[in-house]
Amino acid sequence: MPDPEDQTLQVRIETPVRGILPPMVTPLLERDVLDVAGLERLVEHILAGGVHGLFVLGTTGEAPSLSYRLRRELIERTCRLVNERVPVLVGITDTAFVESVQLARFAAKAGARAVVLSAPYYFPAGQAELLEYLHHLAAELPLPLFLYNMPSHTKVVFEPETVRAAADIPGILGLKDSSANMVYFHQLQLLFQGRPEFSLLIGPEELLAETILLGGHGGICGGANLFPRLYVDLYDAAMRRELDAVTRLHRQVMSVSKTIYSVGHYKSSYLKGIKCALSCMGICEDFMAEPFHRFREPEREIIRRHIETLRAEQG
Amino acid sequence: MPDPEDQTLQVRIETPVRGILPPMVTPLLERDVLDVAGLERLVEHILAGGVHGLFVLGTTGEAPSLSYRLRRELIERTCRLVNERVPVLVGITDTAFVESVQLARFAAKAGARAVVLSAPYYFPAGQAELLEYLHHLAAELPLPLFLYNMPSHTKVVFEPETVRAAADIPGILGLKDSSANMVYFHQLQLLFQGRPEFSLLIGPEELLAETILLGGHGGICGGANLFPRLYVDLYDAAMRRELDAVTRLHRQVMSVSKTIYSVGHYKSSYLKGIKCALSCMGICEDFMAEPFHRFREPEREIIRRHIETLRAEQG
Amino acid sequence: MPDPEDQTLQVRIETPVRGILPPMVTPLLERDVLDVAGLERLVEHILAGGVHGLFVLGTTGEAPSLSYRLRRELIERTCRLVNERVPVLVGITDTAFVESVQLARFAAKAGARAVVLSAPYYFPAGQAELLEYLHHLAAELPLPLFLYNMPSHTKVVFEPETVRAAADIPGILGLKDSSANMVYFHQLQLLFQGRPEFSLLIGPEELLAETILLGGHGGICGGANLFPRLYVDLYDAAMRRELDAVTRLHRQVMSVSKTIYSVGHYKSSYLKGIKCALSCMGICEDFMAEPFHRFREPEREIIRRHIETLRAEQG
Amino acid sequence: MPDPEDQTLQVRIETPVRGILPPMVTPLLERDVLDVAGLERLVEHILAGGVHGLFVLGTTGEAPSLSYRLRRELIERTCRLVNERVPVLVGITDTAFVESVQLARFAAKAGARAVVLSAPYYFPAGQAELLEYLHHLAAELPLPLFLYNMPSHTKVVFEPETVRAAADIPGILGLKDSSANMVYFHQLQLLFQGRPEFSLLIGPEELLAETILLGGHGGICGGANLFPRLYVDLYDAAMRRELDAVTRLHRQVMSVSKTIYSVGHYKSSYLKGIKCALSCMGICEDFMAEPFHRFREPEREIIRRHIETLRAEQG
Repeated sequence: MPDPEDQTLQVRIETPVRGILPPMVTPLLERDVLDVAGLERLVEHILAGGVHGLFVLGTTGEAPSLSYRLRRELIERTCRLVNERVPVLVGITDTAFVESVQLARFAAKAGARAVVLSAPYYFPAGQAELLEYLHHLAAELPLPLFLYNMPSHTKVVFEPETVRAAADIPGILGLKDSSANMVYFHQLQLLFQGRPEFSLLIGPEELLAETILLGGHGGICGGANLFPRLYVDLYDAAMRRELDAVTRLHRQVMSVSKTIYSVGHYKSSYLKGIKCALSCMGICEDFMAEPFHRFREPEREIIRRHIETLRAEQG
Repeated sequence: MPDPEDQTLQVRIETPVRGILPPMVTPLLERDVLDVAGLERLVEHILAGGVHGLFVLGTTGEAPSLSYRLRRELIERTCRLVNERVPVLVGITDTAFVESVQLARFAAKAGARAVVLSAPYYFPAGQAELLEYLHHLAAELPLPLFLYNMPSHTKVVFEPETVRAAADIPGILGLKDSSANMVYFHQLQLLFQGRPEFSLLIGPEELLAETILLGGHGGICGGANLFPRLYVDLYDAAMRRELDAVTRLHRQVMSVSKTIYSVGHYKSSYLKGIKCALSCMGICEDFMAEPFHRFREPEREIIRRHIETLRAEQG
Repeated sequence: MPDPEDQTLQVRIETPVRGILPPMVTPLLERDVLDVAGLERLVEHILAGGVHGLFVLGTTGEAPSLSYRLRRELIERTCRLVNERVPVLVGITDTAFVESVQLARFAAKAGARAVVLSAPYYFPAGQAELLEYLHHLAAELPLPLFLYNMPSHTKVVFEPETVRAAADIPGILGLKDSSANMVYFHQLQLLFQGRPEFSLLIGPEELLAETILLGGHGGICGGANLFPRLYVDLYDAAMRRELDAVTRLHRQVMSVSKTIYSVGHYKSSYLKGIKCALSCMGICEDFMAEPFHRFREPEREIIRRHIETLRAEQG
Repeated sequence: MPDPEDQTLQVRIETPVRGILPPMVTPLLERDVLDVAGLERLVEHILAGGVHGLFVLGTTGEAPSLSYRLRRELIERTCRLVNERVPVLVGITDTAFVESVQLARFAAKAGARAVVLSAPYYFPAGQAELLEYLHHLAAELPLPLFLYNMPSHTKVVFEPETVRAAADIPGILGLKDSSANMVYFHQLQLLFQGRPEFSLLIGPEELLAETILLGGHGGICGGANLFPRLYVDLYDAAMRRELDAVTRLHRQVMSVSKTIYSVGHYKSSYLKGIKCALSCMGICEDFMAEPFHRFREPEREIIRRHIETLRAEQG
């Protein structure tokens, strides 16, 4: 068990991090109230799928919309439920440096193995500023850090050269890319050819197949909240280079994307779809933190039918 | 004095809010440490310019980069220093609904007169979601609310029709527009022709002259941290429709913009320039919250010379 | 009459260009067929409003969607119809340098007084490349050139420093700004304080009032196709600094914008609205060049009613 | 040989189109002057690499920057040089409908097999307008049409549902995607699972490996101007599912991208790099159409060294 007073960097995670690390949904009963029973069912549902880690408080976890109190409660309960079966990674992205550090310290005490951070997302920093920020931040963190490239939400890209320089900062172990720009991802792979222990993970599950086939390490895939085994199977097939299986499983992943994430008009369709589907599956509540709200009955009915079709497809 | 237990809406601000309400810089000694002496000098410097209010914890105040503890300290100290001489408005923009409410409650107890809020800036909400969010939020706030349109940082516009609908929510009294899009601002003016008590305030000081000439109510102008009297004079001249004076003062405002806000390469030039100038003027420290850092000596030297020129220009 | 063989620069236009220069709609009967009778009525309608010039083949003229043959026909017919009553300016914006030059030469022979050019709009050029492009181009042009800043369509801004440098190229006489960013426009005004003969014209009519009040030279306003007198009156009132009249006329201009330009969902609402309104007013056909199409009857009915209201408003 | 008078649709191309179809550079001696000898060497160099087709007048061919006269000369000469050894595809993208049609008719007479078209790129059309535009256009074309998704330059995406509907228009046979967004590409693949004859081709060569591994048909890869055999080998290895070879060749492709396309600051680095490299290799001149210009000696020296390294790498 980690000593809560010790602020030195704890690296208790194997590198490169490999496999499927689902970005866990945050189950809510109502505003600022965790769905504790749902959380327990969700953790067990995901772990039963054979995943390689669990990432809480990411975009899929609606982290920026949650109070700090609730974020801490979630970290604590999740770490206790997971109980070291897999590493828990905790999102600490924040516009305020101090709040990121405090959350990281809390996560370390709760037993998390690493933290994950995208660029500060109000003020758009330049690349040199970003790098300096990472230097300052990493020096204060008790856990290893994964960068999280998420320009659609942060307005800022971690440019490849910035990532290369950041990789020299002690404690920075890898990057999750959610830009959906595979040219960028392949550029990173080329840059890190000589540093195979730096983890390169993909966000969008639609890109998991090619990520693994071409040497990437894993995926932080939202759909693994719903069908964890599917993503683990795809990862395994790609690692074994079984292209027929990869093609078949990749199509199933695309089906999830095309159905569950595509109901309604807003950019939040992905989030609402996953949470609604989890609710239809009886796993947890689908209450959402503001500014979003759960799907109403017509959309829910569509999601319900999609789940049946997907289950049939997945056999 | 407000009763700290009373959560009902306190409207102690005259509408429409008129005049110059500087978005105050947050003076810092170092990370998470307020420059208390600098704050006092800054408040007195600004109030001595005859401004009509003071807005803390906006973009110019680096609010999103500050810890919640420091934000509360700043609110408390500023309200005490101002001591009801002018209304204090407090920025409560946050991606987490609960944190916005908590800050608003704290501000009410500290004696602030209103709060200011832009759209949640991580997840891009749709307009209907934004409106619902404002309904939920306003119901929890003990102070009147001004909207803050800031799409370059939040990725979201308060569309004119959304503003019109929001104006029907009790407690929402006006909007500050920092989009720099005067077509949008004039569209709002047209929409609110029949509701002259709804305040329409401009952010970019480069647009203050025309805002007032064409019927807008005031400006939340960063340069008023440095030269409060200049902006008050421009406001007054425009209210009196003295076009020669307006033209002369507008040019001086453009000079501030062209010099102080245009040193260095990044989008943060505006913020760094103001803070550096305040430091050169002996008013407060120019330490900046991450991810930014203060100007180094070469840029500081340029700012120093610009201030001299501007002072000569302003006579 | 200009000598058609003489390719040297003909400057037969007073600088700075001042007043209202409507960006004329291109009346079409069907694909690639000019509405010749409509063109004649339109030219007379606009000139009867007292405008100071006429700009053909701009964005409002759908120039990029027209064949070169039709563009030449339009130039020729318009110059003949206008018959030197006001200067005719011709848009020569093109992604191909050679085509711009050829159109400019044709325009010179037809009797146009100047040409207007935005940045090449397929490949996004850097500022140094833009400036070199303008050097090369101006050397080939037989007519003076106005720059046209239109970043929403070209993806490229003429940065203020680029404009300043371009103003030193012989033949470049001014700039029309359609960015709707008045901070940019005021920056240009500051830069050109010492060069009052360089014309600074505004595109969006919603910004005409403040442009003239604060020292700009004129407007290239689409609504002047419909109500040329309104825009001329607003220009005159602003030149005479009659703020009550300015405010009243500015509101009428905003009404045009809010009604005629806001029917339907697409970004083409402005163009479709103007063309439809001209058709409702019996001036010319509303056929549109691909990829757009004219409004159908329901939208037309709305436009028809808006015109009545606007006419009542304008008295 | 095609009958030049016959305007009915000529489909003389096997579907789906498969393999490597290089987007050919347009060799220029100076403004508006084709490098005829260079063109011949370039065509032979590319064909010697075993490519499956040739695409002229695309983005890499600087088509929008070329005069129509030169475009026609290029089409004619290229078709004659290729002499039916592989199909020639011709870009007809234009903002003017009529010009696209005229170029397509010219291409048909010259012996081209298909035309390629992105969205009109000045006015941003809505999806319904785009679809109507394609209906009108395809009806006028004598050759089959490939869509070209290029949002970075056109500002418009062909949404998946628009592509699905467009595929029902007679003569529309496929799509080239240069969005670099593989989620989009995989969505199209899912949509067209039941229509295997509709060609799905990738633009960015960095994505060629995964495109072919996961069922795409081919690539329109700029680097194949330089090293046609490399891209053909990668295509073949991916078709044969030899993952070790794919990985090795994919890395070589990434090396080309990282070296040749990354010299200089502007977005035009890709184009300038390819043209400069072709010149260094003695294949053709590197003069560029405005608004671009060729690399100067320092950049040229870098490119020269990169070519040596790449040749060593490719063995």
